[in-house]
Amino acid sequence: MGGDIGPRAVVAALLTSLRKHSGASALIFGDRQKVVQELNACTDPTVLNRIHIRHCDVAIDDQDRPSAVLRHKQDSSMGLALKAVADGEAHACISAGNTGALMALGLVRLKTLPGISRPAICATFPTSTGRSFMLDLGANVDCSPRQLHQFAVLGSLTAQAIDNISAPIVRLLNVGEEESKGGDDIAQTSALLESDPMLNYQGYVEGDGVFKGTTDVVVCDGFAGNVAVKTSEGLAIMIKDMFKTLHTSSWTARLGAFLMRRKLIGLQARLDPAFHNGAYLLGLNGVVIKSHGGASEKAFGHALEVALQAAKHNLPSVLLPILKDKMDNKVNRGL
Amino acid sequence: MGGDIGPRAVVAALLTSLRKHSGASALIFGDRQKVVQELNACTDPTVLNRIHIRHCDVAIDDQDRPSAVLRHKQDSSMGLALKAVADGEAHACISAGNTGALMALGLVRLKTLPGISRPAICATFPTSTGRSFMLDLGANVDCSPRQLHQFAVLGSLTAQAIDNISAPIVRLLNVGEEESKGGDDIAQTSALLESDPMLNYQGYVEGDGVFKGTTDVVVCDGFAGNVAVKTSEGLAIMIKDMFKTLHTSSWTARLGAFLMRRKLIGLQARLDPAFHNGAYLLGLNGVVIKSHGGASEKAFGHALEVALQAAKHNLPSVLLPILKDKMDNKVNRGL
Repeated sequence: MGGDIGPRAVVAALLTSLRKHSGASALIFGDRQKVVQELNACTDPTVLNRIHIRHCDVAIDDQDRPSAVLRHKQDSSMGLALKAVADGEAHACISAGNTGALMALGLVRLKTLPGISRPAICATFPTSTGRSFMLDLGANVDCSPRQLHQFAVLGSLTAQAIDNISAPIVRLLNVGEEESKGGDDIAQTSALLESDPMLNYQGYVEGDGVFKGTTDVVVCDGFAGNVAVKTSEGLAIMIKDMFKTLHTSSWTARLGAFLMRRKLIGLQARLDPAFHNGAYLLGLNGVVIKSHGGASEKAFGHALEVALQAAKHNLPSVLLPILKDKMDNKVNRGL
Repeated sequence: MGGDIGPRAVVAALLTSLRKHSGASALIFGDRQKVVQELNACTDPTVLNRIHIRHCDVAIDDQDRPSAVLRHKQDSSMGLALKAVADGEAHACISAGNTGALMALGLVRLKTLPGISRPAICATFPTSTGRSFMLDLGANVDCSPRQLHQFAVLGSLTAQAIDNISAPIVRLLNVGEEESKGGDDIAQTSALLESDPMLNYQGYVEGDGVFKGTTDVVVCDGFAGNVAVKTSEGLAIMIKDMFKTLHTSSWTARLGAFLMRRKLIGLQARLDPAFHNGAYLLGLNGVVIKSHGGASEKAFGHALEVALQAAKHNLPSVLLPILKDKMDNKVNRGL
């Protein structure tokens, strides 16, 4: 149990989640004493009976480099949580800790799915008609066209499995929608996606297009994806803060805000980054969900929901035979 | 006079601008008949006397590739407008047309400032405390560390000249704020910026940090910059549209919106992409301003304001001796 948020928010969110999902249970890896202290707030035995603590002294810091983690910290709380997924003891691993370490340990413990060279971070974001999946969001700053193709396949299969979309519309993030836009890598990736009969590829999308609700899966390298997501988060937070100052600025504005409160709360919830917390590490042979390091209790609760849904849909197990078949079928493999 | 917006919005915005700035005058390059038709709406001789039309048959389409423009369309309205700046006939050129063509013709007609290999697109965006300059926004999809260094210098000098900031805080856009984040090019660029005594470089900024108002100049390659700006625009438009549906959803919400209208209009204006229309093509030896192709009259009016301010501050002429000195001074040049 790592991350900036500490055991309080994590345990509080977990208790709420277990109350909601009576069939779920939790393994907590971390400092037993701290966890027990937080659990004291709960007196419901039907919830407490479903929580199992595995004490672990070794924690991963934000500053730890992935290579050092692999050498010295495989038995950290993060490493043991991933091992529990690999051993079939848990259906999903969720962490608010160091992303690079989670990637590195995930690769070692769970390996990748057939045809996938490296996992990608994938999350959903709100659009005017619903939501879209976007990947990669920062796991791989430089990506080859081949890797971007793998991400497109992973994203498309995930949108099918989780959101029940039969032929998800896939687009490649670019600096324009015309064919001539972008560099050589973009053009090569576009050709790969175009030639894959498994994908419903519909060309480029610009940053403003991702919110229009005309794309189910947005594919990009980790640098551009991280910039897109973080910029959106920053703007949403700035707008939220501007609203707060509106409410307190005059009595008419205060009254107006009061009358609009229900609608404003609904709008805020749709835009709140907390509502979109919980990113898949797609491509690993197991469910691994990354929560924002600075997540609130509400945000961590949303990440838990993402993990539960992915486990319920049996995500990697559904993807595995399709990817294996794609690799075996020479005409169709593309990867 | 090109772009998707046509002569109506351009001429209407220009008339408003000339009414406001009694010392300004305009040269319009384009189809004389169409321009005259739009000018019929104006009867004020003190404004009309300051408008001069140069008829031009050749227009550049959005589909025209820069190489073809250089071969066949140097005498287009865009080419002639840039020539007017090169010849000292005009203090600034503003266009809503094809960006690639404007870059290519700008380079041929105006050349770059000392030590600058290619121009960058630079625009301002709103932050919680004011505004920041960001470059490049799409002129150069791949940039070397050397080019990014040039952009940092151009951005810093522009923030000094236009916003009167004595030592603008410069940061490099990255996928994290820790030193270990990003690829090799990012690390090399950071070292170059760090070593330049002319810059007040303060390290990396993530996408969400750009709105916090703690950075005056955000430096990035054209791909990431375009993604950041377009994503922000898309999100701002989605939020605006969501608000519209709030207003019409119930009578309490309508009344609430009515009471908040003044504050909402103020907030909307700050976030409205139109308010931030008008990007500098920085690095050229002349003022060239690019308006959004789909700009409204209000948005084009804002781009005109950016052009007037740049001309008033004598932008390239102020930068030229400093950059020349930087090139001559071996200790300090960096470029």
